[in-house]
Amino acid sequence: MEKVFASIITIGDELLIGQVIDTNSAWIAQALNKIGVTVKQRVAVGDVWEDIWNALDEESKKSKIVLITGGLGPTADDITKPLLCEYFGGKMVIDEVTLAHVTYLFETVFKRPMIERNRKQAEVPDVCTVLKNVRGTAPGMLFEKDGVLFFSMPGVPHEMKWLMENQVIPVIEKKFTRGVVQHKTLLTAGIGESFLAELIQDIEHTLPAHIKLAYLPNYGMVRLRLTGSGTSAEVLEKELAFYFNQLTERTKEFLVIDEDLPMELVVGKLLKERKQTLATAESCTGGYIAHQITKHSGASAYYIGSVVSYDNRIKENLLKVPTEILNTVGAVSEETVRQMAEKVREIMQTDYAIAVSGIMGPDGGSPTKPVGTVWIAISSAEKTIAQLFQFRFDRERNIALTATNALNLLRQLIIEKS
Amino acid sequence: MEKVFASIITIGDELLIGQVIDTNSAWIAQALNKIGVTVKQRVAVGDVWEDIWNALDEESKKSKIVLITGGLGPTADDITKPLLCEYFGGKMVIDEVTLAHVTYLFETVFKRPMIERNRKQAEVPDVCTVLKNVRGTAPGMLFEKDGVLFFSMPGVPHEMKWLMENQVIPVIEKKFTRGVVQHKTLLTAGIGESFLAELIQDIEHTLPAHIKLAYLPNYGMVRLRLTGSGTSAEVLEKELAFYFNQLTERTKEFLVIDEDLPMELVVGKLLKERKQTLATAESCTGGYIAHQITKHSGASAYYIGSVVSYDNRIKENLLKVPTEILNTVGAVSEETVRQMAEKVREIMQTDYAIAVSGIMGPDGGSPTKPVGTVWIAISSAEKTIAQLFQFRFDRERNIALTATNALNLLRQLIIEKS
Repeated sequence: MEKVFASIITIGDELLIGQVIDTNSAWIAQALNKIGVTVKQRVAVGDVWEDIWNALDEESKKSKIVLITGGLGPTADDITKPLLCEYFGGKMVIDEVTLAHVTYLFETVFKRPMIERNRKQAEVPDVCTVLKNVRGTAPGMLFEKDGVLFFSMPGVPHEMKWLMENQVIPVIEKKFTRGVVQHKTLLTAGIGESFLAELIQDIEHTLPAHIKLAYLPNYGMVRLRLTGSGTSAEVLEKELAFYFNQLTERTKEFLVIDEDLPMELVVGKLLKERKQTLATAESCTGGYIAHQITKHSGASAYYIGSVVSYDNRIKENLLKVPTEILNTVGAVSEETVRQMAEKVREIMQTDYAIAVSGIMGPDGGSPTKPVGTVWIAISSAEKTIAQLFQFRFDRERNIALTATNALNLLRQLIIEKS
Repeated sequence: MEKVFASIITIGDELLIGQVIDTNSAWIAQALNKIGVTVKQRVAVGDVWEDIWNALDEESKKSKIVLITGGLGPTADDITKPLLCEYFGGKMVIDEVTLAHVTYLFETVFKRPMIERNRKQAEVPDVCTVLKNVRGTAPGMLFEKDGVLFFSMPGVPHEMKWLMENQVIPVIEKKFTRGVVQHKTLLTAGIGESFLAELIQDIEHTLPAHIKLAYLPNYGMVRLRLTGSGTSAEVLEKELAFYFNQLTERTKEFLVIDEDLPMELVVGKLLKERKQTLATAESCTGGYIAHQITKHSGASAYYIGSVVSYDNRIKENLLKVPTEILNTVGAVSEETVRQMAEKVREIMQTDYAIAVSGIMGPDGGSPTKPVGTVWIAISSAEKTIAQLFQFRFDRERNIALTATNALNLLRQLIIEKS
């Protein structure tokens, strides 16, 4: 079966000066992949007439589906809508349904007077199919030219997501017969990318052409992803399972989970199954571990809370780390994290506790405790374990590495008991 | 002066199935912009020979500088290096300097045996200039063809950043005479994009062609950015200041700051200037506010810590919210956040405290307290204020909106006292 290709064009000067990170493209790619559409290329262009025009020309040569986001806001820096109008040879008209919706939003939801600029959001090229956007004032638009479908959506993520799910995907599903694309992903920890490659190279060499293997290293872990394409979901699933089982078997010593789950959800799943609870005491990560856990809906089933003891005062007063320890071995020490873990487990009455203390950088390092020095402790009813880590480089990375390793240590302790 | 254009090509299937978010491109774009190089286009392609080849062809027609990241890891899914070798007509040779560096890394830093696959990382096309990568095993490479410079870098962010700063930028600065590009950004809160546009439209209409205005809305705030290009830094600075001062004056009622600073650093700056301190008590944001503050180096000057009271038990036991309040008006109430804020300020002995409690979704809403209902309290020595917010839609957005609004309320309270 012929692959159905899509291109994603994101528009906005802010993407080219690096003022915002493009999260839309990844989300769109996932959504398309799920329905068997292959993303051929992603392009980001500025608010420049000629560049947008060329991107439309070039991408429509590569793909039957072109998705455009951005450039539809109410302000004057937006040139996308007039450009699309000219590109597809139409003229601007007021869409009455959109106008009614914009009017409704201002009167009922925003409770603000509507101005001419807002009214203009209801203007669309007369050669498009309007895709109603219940989440905002800028409508989505569908154009067709030489057998290629062009979808234009606003760049605001929650508006784009709603439009994709409710307006764009259904049209694509109806219009294109797609092949089947399936992924299977496993997560390893404690083994480097090249060693992992050595370990599984004979399996990798037996993979047929329609099944690809990718190594995705991230913060001390490596994800292995098999991607298969075919015509029968049933056949493909069996084929993928055949190779995937070999991979999980071969990597079992390092295997965290045989799903595409982030570490905090792997731990969450274990805790939930066991009806157990977790608390954290965070110094150097400053709430990041708590946030990683609670950004997922449902965390309240196992996560109780955190004491972020950024200042040593809080380590002393709330977590009862003895002043003497702080004055001798210091806040970044085995003694400190053990006490933090045990005390927060007691305060929050949980089955497990994580405590971390370290030097994230770029400042604060010393010859004996350079930037990247981190102590992690995990406490359970039976015991408290502590481990020293030496990370390097930048703050953001050290914070993320600390969180991942702390959660992985907790995971190992939970499993050890099972 | 002619603009110097650059294109960014990121390589990797993971970008096209949406498994990772591309943060490299934004970082590279910022770095180029700072030295007066204009990013023309950003392209993401998969690990597909033909697509990478075409991207090199197409981007080198548009730009004199082509930056390539990704596809240089030690595993078999990487095809970038052999492709570059063929594209530029070279053959693979071992680079002795790189080999010595890789050997050093394995022996001294990783303390793991080196395998053939690692040795291969020292292989480079003989037509490139090797750019030493002190942070990893894959070297950067510089190729030149028809007056276009091609830089290839690994996709690992901290390796890429080091290479950009130490190897790539210096070459570009030496090779190209660049024009001057300057930005000035201000941050507003409490006014929608279209109303802001109305407010400043006469100023906007007077802007000369070489100064552009962009509206960048984000979580209930709007950033206004002026971008000017010219030949003299001094002249451009004066011109930008002329228009920028008009904008700050006109928007003063909504002005948060006349710099490109995120809200948490605006607040941090105010606290630091006043030598004051802050604590937080977070329920629904689960540590996100603490993380936003502490992800920046230097936060320890004003930030003391947080109690993440995800479970009501912690609100009761640690923050002393009366059981009666939790049982009657509930955890998402003015009474609860006031008590949380006052208590955490007392426990942590700070000048200010923020407390938040709400329903982030997608679960947990009720007819009287739908998803997006959030109470925020700010406590100081003089008083405690509380405000109800009604956000909508998705969890991620509600968490971010809560943090921004809480920090903005705190900012207003700090300023009010000055």
